[in-house]
Amino acid sequence: MIDYRSDNTGRAAPEILDALIRANHGTALGYGGDDYTAALQRHFSELFETVVRVFPVATGTAANALALASLGPSWGNVYCSEVAHINSAEANATGFFGGGLKLVAVAGTHGKISAEALAEALAGISPGQIHRGQPSVVSLTQATDLGAVYALDEIRAVAEVAKARGLKLHMDGARFANALARLGCSPAEPTWRCGIDIMSFGATKNGGALSDAIVVFAPDIADVVAVQLRRAGQVWSKMRFASAQLIAYVENGLWLDMARASNRMAARVGAGLSEIPGARLLAPVEANEIFLELPSGAMDALEADGFQFYRRSRSLARFVCRFDTTGAEADALLAALRRHVATVMAP
Amino acid sequence: MIDYRSDNTGRAAPEILDALIRANHGTALGYGGDDYTAALQRHFSELFETVVRVFPVATGTAANALALASLGPSWGNVYCSEVAHINSAEANATGFFGGGLKLVAVAGTHGKISAEALAEALAGISPGQIHRGQPSVVSLTQATDLGAVYALDEIRAVAEVAKARGLKLHMDGARFANALARLGCSPAEPTWRCGIDIMSFGATKNGGALSDAIVVFAPDIADVVAVQLRRAGQVWSKMRFASAQLIAYVENGLWLDMARASNRMAARVGAGLSEIPGARLLAPVEANEIFLELPSGAMDALEADGFQFYRRSRSLARFVCRFDTTGAEADALLAALRRHVATVMAP
Amino acid sequence: MIDYRSDNTGRAAPEILDALIRANHGTALGYGGDDYTAALQRHFSELFETVVRVFPVATGTAANALALASLGPSWGNVYCSEVAHINSAEANATGFFGGGLKLVAVAGTHGKISAEALAEALAGISPGQIHRGQPSVVSLTQATDLGAVYALDEIRAVAEVAKARGLKLHMDGARFANALARLGCSPAEPTWRCGIDIMSFGATKNGGALSDAIVVFAPDIADVVAVQLRRAGQVWSKMRFASAQLIAYVENGLWLDMARASNRMAARVGAGLSEIPGARLLAPVEANEIFLELPSGAMDALEADGFQFYRRSRSLARFVCRFDTTGAEADALLAALRRHVATVMAP
Amino acid sequence: MIDYRSDNTGRAAPEILDALIRANHGTALGYGGDDYTAALQRHFSELFETVVRVFPVATGTAANALALASLGPSWGNVYCSEVAHINSAEANATGFFGGGLKLVAVAGTHGKISAEALAEALAGISPGQIHRGQPSVVSLTQATDLGAVYALDEIRAVAEVAKARGLKLHMDGARFANALARLGCSPAEPTWRCGIDIMSFGATKNGGALSDAIVVFAPDIADVVAVQLRRAGQVWSKMRFASAQLIAYVENGLWLDMARASNRMAARVGAGLSEIPGARLLAPVEANEIFLELPSGAMDALEADGFQFYRRSRSLARFVCRFDTTGAEADALLAALRRHVATVMAP
Repeated sequence: MIDYRSDNTGRAAPEILDALIRANHGTALGYGGDDYTAALQRHFSELFETVVRVFPVATGTAANALALASLGPSWGNVYCSEVAHINSAEANATGFFGGGLKLVAVAGTHGKISAEALAEALAGISPGQIHRGQPSVVSLTQATDLGAVYALDEIRAVAEVAKARGLKLHMDGARFANALARLGCSPAEPTWRCGIDIMSFGATKNGGALSDAIVVFAPDIADVVAVQLRRAGQVWSKMRFASAQLIAYVENGLWLDMARASNRMAARVGAGLSEIPGARLLAPVEANEIFLELPSGAMDALEADGFQFYRRSRSLARFVCRFDTTGAEADALLAALRRHVATVMAP
Repeated sequence: MIDYRSDNTGRAAPEILDALIRANHGTALGYGGDDYTAALQRHFSELFETVVRVFPVATGTAANALALASLGPSWGNVYCSEVAHINSAEANATGFFGGGLKLVAVAGTHGKISAEALAEALAGISPGQIHRGQPSVVSLTQATDLGAVYALDEIRAVAEVAKARGLKLHMDGARFANALARLGCSPAEPTWRCGIDIMSFGATKNGGALSDAIVVFAPDIADVVAVQLRRAGQVWSKMRFASAQLIAYVENGLWLDMARASNRMAARVGAGLSEIPGARLLAPVEANEIFLELPSGAMDALEADGFQFYRRSRSLARFVCRFDTTGAEADALLAALRRHVATVMAP
Repeated sequence: MIDYRSDNTGRAAPEILDALIRANHGTALGYGGDDYTAALQRHFSELFETVVRVFPVATGTAANALALASLGPSWGNVYCSEVAHINSAEANATGFFGGGLKLVAVAGTHGKISAEALAEALAGISPGQIHRGQPSVVSLTQATDLGAVYALDEIRAVAEVAKARGLKLHMDGARFANALARLGCSPAEPTWRCGIDIMSFGATKNGGALSDAIVVFAPDIADVVAVQLRRAGQVWSKMRFASAQLIAYVENGLWLDMARASNRMAARVGAGLSEIPGARLLAPVEANEIFLELPSGAMDALEADGFQFYRRSRSLARFVCRFDTTGAEADALLAALRRHVATVMAP
Repeated sequence: MIDYRSDNTGRAAPEILDALIRANHGTALGYGGDDYTAALQRHFSELFETVVRVFPVATGTAANALALASLGPSWGNVYCSEVAHINSAEANATGFFGGGLKLVAVAGTHGKISAEALAEALAGISPGQIHRGQPSVVSLTQATDLGAVYALDEIRAVAEVAKARGLKLHMDGARFANALARLGCSPAEPTWRCGIDIMSFGATKNGGALSDAIVVFAPDIADVVAVQLRRAGQVWSKMRFASAQLIAYVENGLWLDMARASNRMAARVGAGLSEIPGARLLAPVEANEIFLELPSGAMDALEADGFQFYRRSRSLARFVCRFDTTGAEADALLAALRRHVATVMAP
């Protein structure tokens, strides 16, 4: 079996679990009052080149929903891509935590939202009218849910439209490391320097174990996040074991090494696809995911060969590379694709 | 420094962290579709001598609030002790997750609710009237928030009153292991055999690390819990790392060994207190917590000596024993109490 | 000034206000325990040819949101038209009252949803999966928000798809009288006989004053509606004054007389439009609303003439007829349209 | 039958219904954009001697819950009397509209909360701690739910404690007219001049029909109230019919005339009670309600005589006077009480 199902089916980086063991000595104040959580603040502030507040949370859904709930009133509209994870795969968590917060889909390509489409959506709601939800937040997924990555100027363009109307900006960074590895810039660039107020900082999908995080750039939001997390049952009393994971994740560039590794394998598969007519990419392969339009018979054959992956529809398959996906696994997938697509498409 | 602040300031049992390391191989389906989570169901079903559904969650607050939200309509009343953690220390999580669920305090001694007081509270609300919240759930804390333990017949008496009105029963078992160690009975006895429908199964305070659990006895509730947990961001995608912790927690009786150890130390302190006039126990020491009425000067002196503990009021101190509290630490506390109370009370 | 802005800018039928005056004698039990509210149950049960529960509410938004909140769990998906009032003009009330309930747009023509599009939307969500909201309710707007009316077999087709998946059915009948006047059938036909479980029964837009209603066909839902309305502050303590309005509204066929009158005027305008090239109907005129694509210059000219109406976009105008719109007003609109469209379109 | 059940069992003042009829001409912009609603703002601003925003709402429960939901975050604590209507008789509406807002009972006499007890409750929660709800609002009921009236200096004392901690102040004025009639001061005195930020302005219980109101004194809150009311389905589209009622209610002092009338009858009964040993007042009769401890046999006898009233417990009866309660009815009640209490208590 070769597993391309998801980046969350994989192992954790051993460094991250080792950090848990190392943190297991002595006593420490609960609920984040410990030294590891204090150190976490310093690590991330250094990483982002500005003072940030970091809150470990159990899952990306919690990070997204609570970040969004902290950004605006419960009668707000949150603008996002139709295919955004918050809109399609988080069990309406945003609506729940947000007390009725409404997600509004905005058009764009490859899982992005376009600045033009956002401007148009906002133009339809005059400020002050109360029959529709009040525009309050824009959420960008980086990397996107179709495996693409926003360029810096794409983020800036969306941010400009949003800020002109007084909206806040959230980034769903479940695969932020993969996006950053692609962009090759510092973490500050696609986030607060582009106007992002708060982000969901994913670790789990990129070699983490049991903790993701919310990173707050806008200082006035941080206290609201803190109290909402406590109420949401997202504040571990033995917080040091979460903070230690996140410190290990970013220490010595581990997170980016892992993201580069999974991106590289996805790129290797992506590059090989150009020679396989009949396997069409839905979006450019810019992170660690490959969305491939395939004949359904080819999918059957891949599964028969022992490849595991998700069928998104009768003609769309998703393959996800993990930090420990090997070159041999990538080549095996390519070879199988080449073989089966040709067979299926033979006249 | 000798730390009596809380059982959540302590270490995790090494066995629990080792289990994490051992679980870190191969790939596994996400969100609880893995083998560890399947095994967890079997372990707990055996432990409780009936088929249960177990859901790992990040915190006790999440366990409580989501269990309660799953038991009844959002317009319900949940009856609990005035000092119950859900009422006094969880940031209104129950009201939030329950969509407006109301906690109603019921009288009793030592953090328990009495069957008589419950009957009286229910008698005040005629079924079918809609101006007040509808009675829907009773929540018992075992061990209580004052360190006492419900006897089996006390639970049965409350359950009888509750069931007669069609109410559901929740147990907050943040310190369930300590209660069980005290009662010396099987886990089934104080729970479903007494009529408990769902429980918050604590591990963190008793040597756990990053996972507590919800245990569902009433099968018709389980699917509602599942979907609410997903929406609440409480379903780890790499669930095996949570399930492995909980398996290790109960395997070979580790949990009860740890609870017995902390109970023993609390009892040792409790026993010695009888010789110290001026230090009055607020409740019998039946688990691992000691609530002590002390002169405020004696508290100052203890702190000066390096003892860490929480002041609940000017005259009330709480001391909590952990699974690794030593006999020497217990004796040191007793000696210091003896010394300082005498000094402060000297004429 | 000739007012085509909305049917809620108009007067109430004098009969309805007179009923208020007549109800103002003696004392009566509060919160719906009065004789008028009891009579209302009988009147509507007779009207619908089955035993129904009727709850007067202040507004259509309250009727919709609370009806939908009563139909399913807070993690449900409600399927409706993109242009449905609940989706576009009720300030996210459904998401709020539903505790996070999500509205999902389904395609169709003229403000309807099509059975095929609904089937496709449901096929995308396998029962039991918990990452997306759970399909729970379908909401139909009758007459639609574009002035069209569902034929009986269109409702049945949607209902069949919905019921096959166990979904409940809600009808937003803000303009139910107009739809019924168009269909020429009994109130039972397009509602419970087609499988509708609960409906928002509008009166305000059709000559009512201060009360709309929720009509419950599925008896097991009624008690949940009752308690939710009480909690929502929608149960008047002097309920007789609301019930008396609704009785007067349906007594002697007043409601249908008024709906026929407004429909007739809309039809008169609609018929005349066929001779005006350049004024294109967005949907057939089947109730009392006219959605007209018009050159923006023609709208300016109409306003200069003293016509009041809403501009939905630069090229879309809405004209609404009320029960007391006169034939002279209809003819004046037609004449003005004829004149201004011709002028604007002149080469 | 002589009806003392509640002030909401009574008629509406004819002036109020007549105003409805008078408002029924021409067309008017919906949702509060009409001339009556504009005039209402002026009337109330004059009445309160400051610029206020007035929002008609259907019920007192809506007024209370939405006012409280507008004052603070959903994780807040609202301090009120144990017997406050919001705590005991509104179906948890505050918790629902407030998204989990928690009501915390504060001690006091006769349905009031005392400044001392409030100070003590607040002292128990240190600012910034996040395990308990955050103190955010104090709600005073004027007149209280036991028929007493806060003196101005009692309000000021509570307000001082609240403001020192940054809390907002709400007044539940369901019987504000009765309180004002008792105090004999201007409406401004016990409200904004004492620091009240927002109030529920009751009309229904004092001769109103279908509309109460929220009156906002703190201008920064008003827009939040507006959008929450819209979302709550509390904004009538034909608002003129609500605003006209409220204008008629206050015009020419009608409201105070009615309140004085009901207060006078309650006082007449109250005065006569001094001669009836065995009938003990629970609180001084300062508004239009009488809470009387009576032998249960005397209650039976009163009912047999045709008196209607509510039994609050086996030994507590409530009698409420309406604006149209007559002197003969008051005297009849006194005579019956005298007779039956004597009989029941006879040895």
